[in-house]
Amino acid sequence: MPPTKPDPDLILGPDPDAPGLSRSIVGVDHLGQPQSVNVIEERPLTIFLNAREIVTAMTIGDYPEYLALGFLRNQGMLTDRDEITAVDYDDEIDTVVVRTRTETDHEAKLARKTRTSGCAVGTVFGDMIEGIEGLRLPAAQVRTSWLYELSARINRMPSLYLSAGAIHGTVLCQGAAPLVYMEDVGRHNAVDKISGWMLRHRAAPEDKILYTTGRLTSEMVIKTALMGIPVLVSRSGFTAWGVDIARQVGLTLVGRLRGQRYICLAGADRLIHDSTPPEGQADDRPRTGRAAE
Amino acid sequence: MPPTKPDPDLILGPDPDAPGLSRSIVGVDHLGQPQSVNVIEERPLTIFLNAREIVTAMTIGDYPEYLALGFLRNQGMLTDRDEITAVDYDDEIDTVVVRTRTETDHEAKLARKTRTSGCAVGTVFGDMIEGIEGLRLPAAQVRTSWLYELSARINRMPSLYLSAGAIHGTVLCQGAAPLVYMEDVGRHNAVDKISGWMLRHRAAPEDKILYTTGRLTSEMVIKTALMGIPVLVSRSGFTAWGVDIARQVGLTLVGRLRGQRYICLAGADRLIHDSTPPEGQADDRPRTGRAAE
Repeated sequence: MPPTKPDPDLILGPDPDAPGLSRSIVGVDHLGQPQSVNVIEERPLTIFLNAREIVTAMTIGDYPEYLALGFLRNQGMLTDRDEITAVDYDDEIDTVVVRTRTETDHEAKLARKTRTSGCAVGTVFGDMIEGIEGLRLPAAQVRTSWLYELSARINRMPSLYLSAGAIHGTVLCQGAAPLVYMEDVGRHNAVDKISGWMLRHRAAPEDKILYTTGRLTSEMVIKTALMGIPVLVSRSGFTAWGVDIARQVGLTLVGRLRGQRYICLAGADRLIHDSTPPEGQADDRPRTGRAAE
Repeated sequence: MPPTKPDPDLILGPDPDAPGLSRSIVGVDHLGQPQSVNVIEERPLTIFLNAREIVTAMTIGDYPEYLALGFLRNQGMLTDRDEITAVDYDDEIDTVVVRTRTETDHEAKLARKTRTSGCAVGTVFGDMIEGIEGLRLPAAQVRTSWLYELSARINRMPSLYLSAGAIHGTVLCQGAAPLVYMEDVGRHNAVDKISGWMLRHRAAPEDKILYTTGRLTSEMVIKTALMGIPVLVSRSGFTAWGVDIARQVGLTLVGRLRGQRYICLAGADRLIHDSTPPEGQADDRPRTGRAAE
């Protein structure tokens, strides 16, 4: 395994040694020999907005407050106008309650749509699509050298991906610097945790780049657009609808970033080609990590 | 790219050349040159059970009838006791309606839980967990040589994975023979399509092996158990809860199957080590496909 080291620009990142995020399980390998492997945890977290149960997410369990805030924000259930008075996590019953000073618009909306809660997921995609109507992301410039440097720096940071695999990562970046790196069993949770961190710390989105290990699907593109971030980068591939939406909202979409190769299927006008890589070079991704497929 | 060819045992498999499953999109590559790439489609499909709207799934769009049947079956909303009278797909409004002779138990259950439909997703995980209480999968024997042969045969079949990437595959197998290979943008859809095919064709589960490209999460393990299949195999990794549930229901769980390496974290007693691979051999997976991460 290549050496890993904490990144000097990182504000918040994975703690692969934190208790409760992974555990060692003994199995049998292809030679019939006992083998112990490190496996990520997966546990339910139920998110409440005031008195209303909204959703149960499957998560590794770190940063539950950011996950709750980011999920509600990305669903349009929390806006900048809502004053958050408390975010209470109870690890015994796996719940987070986000409290606002006054009932939010979306509580009323949900009350019309659902009798019990917990079943809001089917409606949220529609709400997200509504949220991007008329949205146009701000101008920005992205140096291709930043993309290569980000890819290399992110791949070398200590992470649950490297220690246990089967996990997705999302990183909030500025220029060539990774700032906040979140991991989770579901790629949407990792993005939501970034969104919650941004909401909590009032982070400006217009000069940021979002990096994800996951595919560039419609849902990933919509979440990034709702967060106001103009550039989304992934080492994975695209879906056609994801590309369509990115072009509609003016999001720069860079996929299949491996080593110094990539393809940009939307918003290529933001890219400044300041680093032209040699042809035929190798992928610099550590081979020891196992993809979260 | 290694040569791909149809498998002689395959009953139903991917048709990467079918219209509407992928499309060519022109972008810009790392050299700043225009490049055309093949990208999978992703579109909504709304599933109805009789008059009730159940869920909207994001799918590549092939086999909508199997997806609807399998989804409803894996959620416990359709059982062997329900007589299915029609499965109607309307490609203009992207809906499938599954009709049964009499209203199912689950329609009544859903009516209690939700006012409008479309928002059933939050409740379904709980319903699935209920379904595996007391479940114990049947005895079976699995030769490790089958696993290696399956992996090699599946990797060489024509697929959207090889032609466009960013997609998951699930394969229903018997011994070393792949029988039904389904692909989809979401790994759960691919499994549900297999389940729908099995329901439609009254396929016995107890002598089958389910192969998936996706991670072995709690949801994948529960779906496989509900389908009655005693062996689940993946080239990806595990979550700890997935392993816990597999051990509880007696499911054999083989992960990280690459070339002739793997690790089994549950139900290893079903494995017969009839093929001991040499140490240090290479992965035989074609490198041209791009993972659906």
